[in-house]
Amino acid sequence: MPLPRQVFIAVIGAGGVGKCFLSQLSGLATKLSQAPGTPHYISLIWLSTSKKAIYHADYKSLGDWESELQNASKPALPLPELCEYLVKAPGKVVLVDNTSSQDVAESYPMFLHKGISIVTPNKKAFSGSYELWTSIFKAASNGSGTGGYVFHESSVGAGLPVISTLKDLVETGDEVHKIEGVFSGTMSFLFNSFQPTSGGGGPFSAEVSNAKDKGYTEPDARDDLNGLDVARKLTILARLAGLQVESPTSFPVQSLIPKELESCSSGDEFLQRLPEFDGQMDQAKQAAESEGKVIRFVGSVDVPNNKVKVGLEKVDKRDPIAGLKGSDNMIAMYTKRYGDNPLIIQGAGAGGEVTAMGVTADVVKVLRLLD
Amino acid sequence: MPLPRQVFIAVIGAGGVGKCFLSQLSGLATKLSQAPGTPHYISLIWLSTSKKAIYHADYKSLGDWESELQNASKPALPLPELCEYLVKAPGKVVLVDNTSSQDVAESYPMFLHKGISIVTPNKKAFSGSYELWTSIFKAASNGSGTGGYVFHESSVGAGLPVISTLKDLVETGDEVHKIEGVFSGTMSFLFNSFQPTSGGGGPFSAEVSNAKDKGYTEPDARDDLNGLDVARKLTILARLAGLQVESPTSFPVQSLIPKELESCSSGDEFLQRLPEFDGQMDQAKQAAESEGKVIRFVGSVDVPNNKVKVGLEKVDKRDPIAGLKGSDNMIAMYTKRYGDNPLIIQGAGAGGEVTAMGVTADVVKVLRLLD
Repeated sequence: MPLPRQVFIAVIGAGGVGKCFLSQLSGLATKLSQAPGTPHYISLIWLSTSKKAIYHADYKSLGDWESELQNASKPALPLPELCEYLVKAPGKVVLVDNTSSQDVAESYPMFLHKGISIVTPNKKAFSGSYELWTSIFKAASNGSGTGGYVFHESSVGAGLPVISTLKDLVETGDEVHKIEGVFSGTMSFLFNSFQPTSGGGGPFSAEVSNAKDKGYTEPDARDDLNGLDVARKLTILARLAGLQVESPTSFPVQSLIPKELESCSSGDEFLQRLPEFDGQMDQAKQAAESEGKVIRFVGSVDVPNNKVKVGLEKVDKRDPIAGLKGSDNMIAMYTKRYGDNPLIIQGAGAGGEVTAMGVTADVVKVLRLLD
Repeated sequence: MPLPRQVFIAVIGAGGVGKCFLSQLSGLATKLSQAPGTPHYISLIWLSTSKKAIYHADYKSLGDWESELQNASKPALPLPELCEYLVKAPGKVVLVDNTSSQDVAESYPMFLHKGISIVTPNKKAFSGSYELWTSIFKAASNGSGTGGYVFHESSVGAGLPVISTLKDLVETGDEVHKIEGVFSGTMSFLFNSFQPTSGGGGPFSAEVSNAKDKGYTEPDARDDLNGLDVARKLTILARLAGLQVESPTSFPVQSLIPKELESCSSGDEFLQRLPEFDGQMDQAKQAAESEGKVIRFVGSVDVPNNKVKVGLEKVDKRDPIAGLKGSDNMIAMYTKRYGDNPLIIQGAGAGGEVTAMGVTADVVKVLRLLD
């Protein structure tokens, strides 16, 4: 018999974010079960990677998932079968997708229709086709449907309260005029190093290699430099602000991959040849410097004019965007109520712990709504 | 018969924030009633000021509250009678307290115990005695009780997502080390004018008069200058971070009211005599300037050392706190997960519309939880 206020959690993905999340979930479960007056019981009943899965036919909680996963031999069920399995759980279910898989993203409407809630940092579902976006929120209880709930705070700015704040502004009737900022921890680190406000910085290609060595880029740095990650985040914010953005490639996105290197067959070859183009980036840097500015990789959504764009911009050295440190994100929301001085949210926008934090906080929100 | 998903709203206070809130509520009610799939119906059934009230014995929605209130002659019911009235409403009730009344604040446990939810920007309940704090969260469903829900986002930083973010950090198991910033729109405006980072600024007393003329201070400017408003906000944040702060006067709070003027019988007399003390403030300004710094009115919570303090500090000119504009607040949260670069929230921390926005967004959260 299920405990009162027992909720079942299924998790896909046990990489960087996934591991941090599982650790936070375990702390949360302990805390909630001991809450005076209103204890909640969380049971982890499914954990899968792209290769294998651990779960029990009788929905028994997983124990030491780390060693169980290591010893596991069962392959993960196909998503429709996972859905069938979860629907039959003896209580409400939250599916946490800690992957960046397009396939899993496309299955959200199926899970939501069946009353299973979704919590995820995966950008793919919310920045893919507008059709997928619509079908997700048509199904979800916190959209216009009657299915599960869907929360995705960590899909923009990791654990920073960007999406919840933008939703609050819109829901309470504020008019969002512009959203602008630095939306990529990688790009932030890269340009803060390439052109610090205090001067200095090495050749662009050397800074890219440095960022990669420090673990700030994707395994293939081109996946950051093509601007698509930022374009995906802008797509999500623009849609929340009411724009019908068709896809993350339906507006101007500046790629920092030189045309001549688009055909490189590997990330290594790309990095090897990138120095040939350092001159171009140096020119841009000097052009900015001569105006007392620095270059930064910026994204913006202009709501009244229905314009989204992503790319290099010259930014005044005194602008808060110019003075960011490390791999910080900064998101400024200009609205009717906030006037000339925007509402600004700033802080680490990448990293396992802070991304998982947004996911765990969303799980708490769903638990409350499922009560 | 109540409509499906009908929630009754009672509002105390129709001043600056109250009027903005009622206008936002009306927009929200229209939007929610037209939401495809999951319409909600909001009925405003009570509106009172300190002098009078409008409501109907049969819980009929108030129509044009502005003219109804003008023509009203009924005095407001005493709070216990209001509670009885609301308890008998044919549906769930949210009481919105848009006053800064200590009496109303002290009645929250009574309402919460009866299942009535509370939404408020009123700092008094959360920054008064620790006993009141405890009894509120012991009663509330989102505390350890089984009564109504309580939300108070706008009690710190107006509509800025400060309280919800701090709660998320704590709930998901992050360790909050320090909270620091500028928590008063009045103090922000005052010191941004008195000592801009770019130099200049008039005598302190002239800047106080200017801030008062522009509507940035309370009717009696001493209510801002005594530091108590900031101390109340710090009390709330410190408690949310886990410290048992007894009251807003149980830690060091620097008052900017010179000792000699504490006995002034009126705000006007105070303003008249304040120029006698401009020399002291000028000294502080020059001392900061000689170190390349500016003075700002700052509050901080040092969690591991259980220390809260409020007062003037010399701040490096390049520090984001020094560069604030207008009456902006800035709140920096240093945590284990965010490391050296804090999570920062910045923007207007006062004003009717942005304060009401936080209240309206909280009402939406309660509506979802009441489903």
